[in-house]
Amino acid sequence: MVKVLAVNAGSSTLKWKLFDMPAEVELADGLIDRLGQPKSKVKITYGDGQQFVDDHPIDSHSEAVTALMTYLKDLGLVEHLHEIVGIGHRVVAGGETFKESVVVDDHVLLEINNLRDYAPLHNPIEARYIGIFRQAMPWALEVAVFDTAFHQSMPAVNYLYSLPYHYYEKYGARKYGAHGTSVRFVSQRTADLMGKPVEDLRMIVMHLGSGSSVTAVQGGKSLDTSMGFTPLAGVTMGTRTGDVDASLVAYLMDKLGITDVHEMIHILNNQSGLLGISELSADQRDLEDVEATDPKAALALDIYANRVVKYVGSYVALMNGVDALVFAGGVGENGIDMRARIMDQLTYLGATIDLEKNQVRGKETDLSRADATVQTWLVPTNEELMIARDVMDLANN
Amino acid sequence: MVKVLAVNAGSSTLKWKLFDMPAEVELADGLIDRLGQPKSKVKITYGDGQQFVDDHPIDSHSEAVTALMTYLKDLGLVEHLHEIVGIGHRVVAGGETFKESVVVDDHVLLEINNLRDYAPLHNPIEARYIGIFRQAMPWALEVAVFDTAFHQSMPAVNYLYSLPYHYYEKYGARKYGAHGTSVRFVSQRTADLMGKPVEDLRMIVMHLGSGSSVTAVQGGKSLDTSMGFTPLAGVTMGTRTGDVDASLVAYLMDKLGITDVHEMIHILNNQSGLLGISELSADQRDLEDVEATDPKAALALDIYANRVVKYVGSYVALMNGVDALVFAGGVGENGIDMRARIMDQLTYLGATIDLEKNQVRGKETDLSRADATVQTWLVPTNEELMIARDVMDLANN
Repeated sequence: MVKVLAVNAGSSTLKWKLFDMPAEVELADGLIDRLGQPKSKVKITYGDGQQFVDDHPIDSHSEAVTALMTYLKDLGLVEHLHEIVGIGHRVVAGGETFKESVVVDDHVLLEINNLRDYAPLHNPIEARYIGIFRQAMPWALEVAVFDTAFHQSMPAVNYLYSLPYHYYEKYGARKYGAHGTSVRFVSQRTADLMGKPVEDLRMIVMHLGSGSSVTAVQGGKSLDTSMGFTPLAGVTMGTRTGDVDASLVAYLMDKLGITDVHEMIHILNNQSGLLGISELSADQRDLEDVEATDPKAALALDIYANRVVKYVGSYVALMNGVDALVFAGGVGENGIDMRARIMDQLTYLGATIDLEKNQVRGKETDLSRADATVQTWLVPTNEELMIARDVMDLANN
Repeated sequence: MVKVLAVNAGSSTLKWKLFDMPAEVELADGLIDRLGQPKSKVKITYGDGQQFVDDHPIDSHSEAVTALMTYLKDLGLVEHLHEIVGIGHRVVAGGETFKESVVVDDHVLLEINNLRDYAPLHNPIEARYIGIFRQAMPWALEVAVFDTAFHQSMPAVNYLYSLPYHYYEKYGARKYGAHGTSVRFVSQRTADLMGKPVEDLRMIVMHLGSGSSVTAVQGGKSLDTSMGFTPLAGVTMGTRTGDVDASLVAYLMDKLGITDVHEMIHILNNQSGLLGISELSADQRDLEDVEATDPKAALALDIYANRVVKYVGSYVALMNGVDALVFAGGVGENGIDMRARIMDQLTYLGATIDLEKNQVRGKETDLSRADATVQTWLVPTNEELMIARDVMDLANN
């Protein structure tokens, strides 16, 4: 048995999970939040539900890694840090360079940095953390797992925009998608649960959360996905608008007196979606609480479902049929009402769910009614486990 | 019998048709092109295929109307201009003000001008022409027929973007669609041809041309359409990109060193679509000629079909099924290969076409194979006739 750390780093957060591998036992689930603020927030769940919390100030990425290593030892999660043989890092943008997970060397680290244009808020920080972990635990195999890699199987007909072709050649302007690690996990797991080879299945994975995507998975590979060049595009999300007429960017800039286009895109990313429509909350639970009396809350929820339904329909057409629909992500796994709202509009597919079975949160469940001809599943995602598996695969190669 | 003129005016063109009504006989089809250029171009087809051409300079909108009136008399299309009892004008943007065609009075004219924000290149010129015709033929009933009116039946769940709600309230930021007059004509005609009340049918109308749209028509009303706030959005078009990740607007501006967002939108409108991908032509016929040896031409055609297929799929989901698919517009009516390319990906619907029957251009045809469970039709559009009918309806009220 060995231990593997799965790391998901952001600008002010460091999320991680520790696994016993290959048994796939989750030993600990940790979060270091509010880096650089007066009171950082550390929370670690481990053992049989024990919790550790701390709020001493953590000022830098290096300090966060040092603190993490101290916690691992102090809480008895490792006896010696050398038990950790591999560290897998979630990296947001892999561009066209990384079609699968890779062992990090100097060249890979440079490339991750070079792809910063595609994820300016993420890739540089992720590269930074990878470097810090390399110095701190030089014996561990470091692996980069890319959000975009799973979608690199998309054919050009789906990933290319109808823009001047040289924008793709010169500037990489194409659809990359996101949520790839999640969708890869969920589609494999669903095939296992269905008892069929993933190669034989056409699936549509609805990863719904504050960020949401819909992906057509054909034969275990991503065929098309709703997110685009960035995670702004596609379905309605918590604060992101999803698809809009690009002309509105220009029109609204004129109306609002905005001169910097990035300011407008910031609004589309952060003040739109459920929050924008409802003018109340980005969280579907808040909206469900008031929808009976708040028409804008109800409308926001209807639009959220409507966009998912339309993407599902488009991918059924693309695959000329479908074998299974899968819900994952925070809303997909826990949003009982939202799942029902969506599935109510997809009965034409033969994908009718059992409303009793649908009364479930976060548990692998076949939601299908007995007479359904297309199965509908709830399959909780586990990106961190997928990352740990990739580390093991590359360690054993 | 009376005569009705249907007018479609642009910045440098004046297109018109003259009808004998209510017999719906097309007496003449005219075009005045290149207004204000050294050699204007006049072409009128009338009688049993006779043609009149002229190239004397026409410098202004007023001169164009005067010339039109002269031609009508000189070619014997009218004995006296008083035979023309009504003039119907195509107007691009009706906003939320105009949900159907209306008789033009001073107030309507003002409103059309006020809606210029939604169609800056069209509404002001159209208002201008309406004013000129009113002065020139004050006895005729003037009617405005809006491209957007048919889509005013869309419910909020489909017309609203996932943007801050007050952008809709304050600035009218929503989906308006276009091609409405065409889709109204085509959906009514298809119901007639099917021998069923349009109220009982769920149709998807693919109006494909240099501008293209896909519309879900439920019970004779527009439920959703692919064009958006402007005709930029939706499927791939001749030079328009259709849907793109809005983030690309900002990203590409940075890369291209463009500081005016309108310049970027201009590229998305005029240098993208089939032309952009192929870097060869905006016309699908040119691309079909070379696709066997030009991969980018083939890719452009594949993407064009792909986007239509995905919108059709999304609208099948939205209507929870479909009764008929309808092709219209220049490419829809004449693009034998493009129709086949699209329908080849929609067999899951039960909408299989007969490839023999598909060998047809511009003629009302049931393309369906005998065993198809969803009918597929080719129904040539006739916006001008629809405009003339609206004039008659309002004249008889």
